[in-house]
Amino acid sequence: MPSGRRGRFAPGTPVLEAARELGVYVESVCGGRGICGRCQVEVQEGRFAKHGITSSADHISAFSPKEERYAEKRDLKEGRRLSCSATIQGDLVVDVPQDVAINAQVVRKDSDGRVIERNPAIHMCYVEVEEPDMHKPLGDLDRLKVALERDWGIKDPDVDTHLLATVQKTLREGNWTVTAAIHRDQPTDRPRIIAIYPGLKNEAYGIACDIGSTTIAMHLSSLLSGRTVASAGASNPQIRFGEDLMSRVSYVMMNPEGREAMTTAVRQALNELIDKVCADGGIERSDILDAVFVGNPIMHHLFLGIDPTELGGAPFALAVSGALSLKASEIDLPMNAGTRVYVLPCIAGHVGADAAAATLTEGPHRQDETMLLVDIGTNAEIVLGSAARVVAASSPTGPAFEGAEISCGQRAAPGAIERVRIDPETLEPRFRVIGIDAWSNEPAFAEAAGDKKITGVCGSGIIEVIAEMYLAGIISEDGVIDGALAAKSPRIVENGRTFSYVIQEAEPRLMITQTDVRAIQLAKAALYAGVKLLMDKLAITEVDRIGLAGAFGSFIDPKYAMVLGLVPDCDLDKVKAVGNAAGTGARMALLNRDHRREIERTVTEIEKIETALEPKFQDHFVAAMALPNKVDRFPKLSAAVTMPPRKTLSDADGDDGATRRRGGRAGGRRARGDAS
Amino acid sequence: MPSGRRGRFAPGTPVLEAARELGVYVESVCGGRGICGRCQVEVQEGRFAKHGITSSADHISAFSPKEERYAEKRDLKEGRRLSCSATIQGDLVVDVPQDVAINAQVVRKDSDGRVIERNPAIHMCYVEVEEPDMHKPLGDLDRLKVALERDWGIKDPDVDTHLLATVQKTLREGNWTVTAAIHRDQPTDRPRIIAIYPGLKNEAYGIACDIGSTTIAMHLSSLLSGRTVASAGASNPQIRFGEDLMSRVSYVMMNPEGREAMTTAVRQALNELIDKVCADGGIERSDILDAVFVGNPIMHHLFLGIDPTELGGAPFALAVSGALSLKASEIDLPMNAGTRVYVLPCIAGHVGADAAAATLTEGPHRQDETMLLVDIGTNAEIVLGSAARVVAASSPTGPAFEGAEISCGQRAAPGAIERVRIDPETLEPRFRVIGIDAWSNEPAFAEAAGDKKITGVCGSGIIEVIAEMYLAGIISEDGVIDGALAAKSPRIVENGRTFSYVIQEAEPRLMITQTDVRAIQLAKAALYAGVKLLMDKLAITEVDRIGLAGAFGSFIDPKYAMVLGLVPDCDLDKVKAVGNAAGTGARMALLNRDHRREIERTVTEIEKIETALEPKFQDHFVAAMALPNKVDRFPKLSAAVTMPPRKTLSDADGDDGATRRRGGRAGGRRARGDAS
Repeated sequence: MPSGRRGRFAPGTPVLEAARELGVYVESVCGGRGICGRCQVEVQEGRFAKHGITSSADHISAFSPKEERYAEKRDLKEGRRLSCSATIQGDLVVDVPQDVAINAQVVRKDSDGRVIERNPAIHMCYVEVEEPDMHKPLGDLDRLKVALERDWGIKDPDVDTHLLATVQKTLREGNWTVTAAIHRDQPTDRPRIIAIYPGLKNEAYGIACDIGSTTIAMHLSSLLSGRTVASAGASNPQIRFGEDLMSRVSYVMMNPEGREAMTTAVRQALNELIDKVCADGGIERSDILDAVFVGNPIMHHLFLGIDPTELGGAPFALAVSGALSLKASEIDLPMNAGTRVYVLPCIAGHVGADAAAATLTEGPHRQDETMLLVDIGTNAEIVLGSAARVVAASSPTGPAFEGAEISCGQRAAPGAIERVRIDPETLEPRFRVIGIDAWSNEPAFAEAAGDKKITGVCGSGIIEVIAEMYLAGIISEDGVIDGALAAKSPRIVENGRTFSYVIQEAEPRLMITQTDVRAIQLAKAALYAGVKLLMDKLAITEVDRIGLAGAFGSFIDPKYAMVLGLVPDCDLDKVKAVGNAAGTGARMALLNRDHRREIERTVTEIEKIETALEPKFQDHFVAAMALPNKVDRFPKLSAAVTMPPRKTLSDADGDDGATRRRGGRAGGRRARGDAS
Repeated sequence: MPSGRRGRFAPGTPVLEAARELGVYVESVCGGRGICGRCQVEVQEGRFAKHGITSSADHISAFSPKEERYAEKRDLKEGRRLSCSATIQGDLVVDVPQDVAINAQVVRKDSDGRVIERNPAIHMCYVEVEEPDMHKPLGDLDRLKVALERDWGIKDPDVDTHLLATVQKTLREGNWTVTAAIHRDQPTDRPRIIAIYPGLKNEAYGIACDIGSTTIAMHLSSLLSGRTVASAGASNPQIRFGEDLMSRVSYVMMNPEGREAMTTAVRQALNELIDKVCADGGIERSDILDAVFVGNPIMHHLFLGIDPTELGGAPFALAVSGALSLKASEIDLPMNAGTRVYVLPCIAGHVGADAAAATLTEGPHRQDETMLLVDIGTNAEIVLGSAARVVAASSPTGPAFEGAEISCGQRAAPGAIERVRIDPETLEPRFRVIGIDAWSNEPAFAEAAGDKKITGVCGSGIIEVIAEMYLAGIISEDGVIDGALAAKSPRIVENGRTFSYVIQEAEPRLMITQTDVRAIQLAKAALYAGVKLLMDKLAITEVDRIGLAGAFGSFIDPKYAMVLGLVPDCDLDKVKAVGNAAGTGARMALLNRDHRREIERTVTEIEKIETALEPKFQDHFVAAMALPNKVDRFPKLSAAVTMPPRKTLSDADGDDGATRRRGGRAGGRRARGDAS
């Protein structure tokens, strides 16, 4: 347990050997010498009807001298056994615990608490090496190889060049016992010795990292226990070269040194994050032996030192789309001299390794239900499908969701409004501000706020306020703010030829203008149209579940996203924020190379849709300008939320919004970078 | 031809395809597009009784448009056909010429003129890559991989990291045609793209290098035609840290920075040699894609940056003995960013990769005859055997053969005596001096010599003068200079308690002293004793042929070597200088990876004898102190050379020579470096 695999073995078979024969991954560094303690198991006692056996502690061998010795020297919890030493003597139900942490390190709770089955690309292999012998003049390294083949079945491994100069000292320092770190990712790879430590080295670490345009998130995990021992995040310093992706591509196009400057910036930030997680985890950089990186295509290219200019214009050609294996030292990330790097594949020119990692995490390709997975940034990355078929696309949503084109918009930070409710009778708003627990209409609010200013509305607040405006009848289906309501409420104010809704009168005055609503309509219409194209491709009219990935997805209320028609109709309880799914996917690929093969295979099977090439995009886009949609019904949403009666208004610049959109920003992705 | 392989093929089969099916290596860079011209063959016409067929130019297809085009644009010699295009139409005898040089480069004659069948670790593969397509958003590199699999059957290659940043530009520069350099050495290796060139790149080079303690020799060869296009040599700059190997080990032991200084020195010399062969061959360093290095164990270690201290004392443990694959950039030899390095295996602690390379060249393991292969330096490396069994050892000859312990000894340079004859009646010598063609007794000599001084005697001259002294009866079987002859000739002079033989009276006075004779006796006895141990191991009393490798081996006259008893009795015409056999072996490994596998396998099969551990070494050594030997008869030598009657004398310090030897220098190898 928990794999549930079972088999029959001759009495006297070591439990570890039985586990391996069943394909159950049980760690062992010392190769069965009873010194590393990594192979601990627990016998479950009792009658197991499901298995038809009675498992008992009497059915496992008594403590061997090796176990006695280990239990004396180290901490072997009550009930725990070393599976390399304990042998099967009768019917047994054996539990492989997931918490075998050998060193007393600080263990942080994983952000998502997910237990990832382990099968890492790095193995630590302890061996006793024969001493040099004039009669058999094999070199030190060659005798190490003999020991690795004898004890671990590792045939003819390659050796990292940096080890040639150190192998002599290491072997003598360890008195002819060493632990070799063996890297083998793909089954077609020759195994490779990437590090050698004197004596028993009973720990090894890896990092998993999602390089976002705005934020970089990094996790430090034990490759031996699977635990995440530290996590850290930092702003992407490339922001100083351009807020959004396309402005960074432009920067490279305009500045000869731009690409290098941005590569250096992101690698420096990564090095600082590595220092941080190492300090938090109490380990050395050289203890990190493996690293997995994901990012959107432009981050991916800049990180690897590749010019992203081609991604700025059709045909949006990636320099490389497949998964990559390299050495950390080759990309200026000094850790251990042998540290390996794995980069997940990109799906398409605007659907990156981050989307691939999110796909790996949420696993639409592993499900019978059809799942929509959306990561909203300047480009929304959209993956849709099930075990039968998966499709993917990107949609140029622009930066409106991040508050960039909104008059009162701001980044999510203290002082920003993040939740809004509007009373449909009085049209009065109440809201919540980041950093203050109470709602604005509650007595505690004024006290908590004190003289702190409310400075703007962040992305999730904008979604909510516009959705609430629609639910309260302030905005029509077409997105027009109803000027007639100005008579009913001072919150509706005239603003040239259009109207605005005032959230806060005090300085700074915060309003949602007609232009703000249009910006959100354009962004959400682009996203929805992309989703619809994928639904067309799968010939489906509804999705079973929706995952909203990334920072934006984590903070918006699925209900309001649906009220606005960002995403298609779905049971509200099947719409979930999936957090940093990309970071989790990177962690899965770090801890289990099978997940690498899984996502490599999945990415080649995903059908890529280029929204710019699909004639129906325009129709879907126009229909999606309406709230929630001109054409599509939202019956499940309507059952959960009282939708306002349909109301159509028109304003001075509203009707040509869709047209402007296609000629404007949507086309702009090409216009900016396309020389053709 | 010349492989002699034959088969039956359907009419219309391209000749290239037939060759490949027969396992005949025919180069092709363009993959059958008729543009590289590498696959040229010639039809032999006539009746071939041996094959039972009549081959005719009518039996091959007429010139195809591809061939017409190639012949127009380039030079296609009369009778030559492109085997990718020409098809089999009937019985054919096809010649694969060895001289398909495409570029009009200066081609030097190979030093040894040896034609090496080619199967290099690097292949140049021209492909036409699909342009980017939004509907199939594979990356540039990934589409290149697709083309490589489609046209060349190269599955899922690894890619050198440095190419990630350049692949976009290269593909566009070549208008979506590129030539990829693919490295695959061992069959278990995944193929790897190490370089990409725009369009057709129809040449690639490699270097083969023997790092000797004194001299470094380098060859530059075309990987596509096999031709050596340049060769160069240089002194090993490590000489400034110590003349012989053991003094360099001592230098490392005494100086904390010694290892690094010597590694830097040898790599710098290699870089200068690379520049030289590139200039001579008219190519760029970046055109070199593969490199093979050999050297004795201490050179091997210092070259790779490994501390050689362990080799200074028992158990003489190599840090690494097996063959090595690495990148040139990892050892500070910048050529192409993707250039690979292969280092041949070492046989034992004092029998290095140079001995392995010489073994590969001379191939005792491929012969029915038993061959003795000797490379004489400070340590003699000795390999003995046949296809049935090969044994190897080293013997601590010391530097006497290099003139270092000889009173009149000097390096082989102008002014040094290199040949000596002594009239057995008058005991008068005549000699030849480096730089002068005439013998010293010829009239032309004085004229040529002018006022140039004769400064000393080089290694080969010392062998000859002592052998001639023995043949003239001046030295007894025991190596004692016969003082009684002083009465007969003024050449014999008293020198304290012993006597000397005067070669030149004029300044500088050149004499062979009793001590000089003892030094040569000690050196040759060590060598012979080592050989005898190996003969004991094989239970043989004579060898069929002898190869004398290295600079010393090239210059000494085999007859005199045998008169002195350096090597065992053998037909004189079967004793050959084999030149820089180590350099040739490196070139074989460069041009054909099968030779790498061959020597790797052979080295594991060679039985290593540690002379220091063999109780019989002492007996053999004592017997070998005599000229030519106290115990062993030299019947074949006696048939060719009139040997003097046996004469036994003793001198004041002669009798304990053997004992002194074992306590002195022979033990010294250990004493210098052994802390035990």
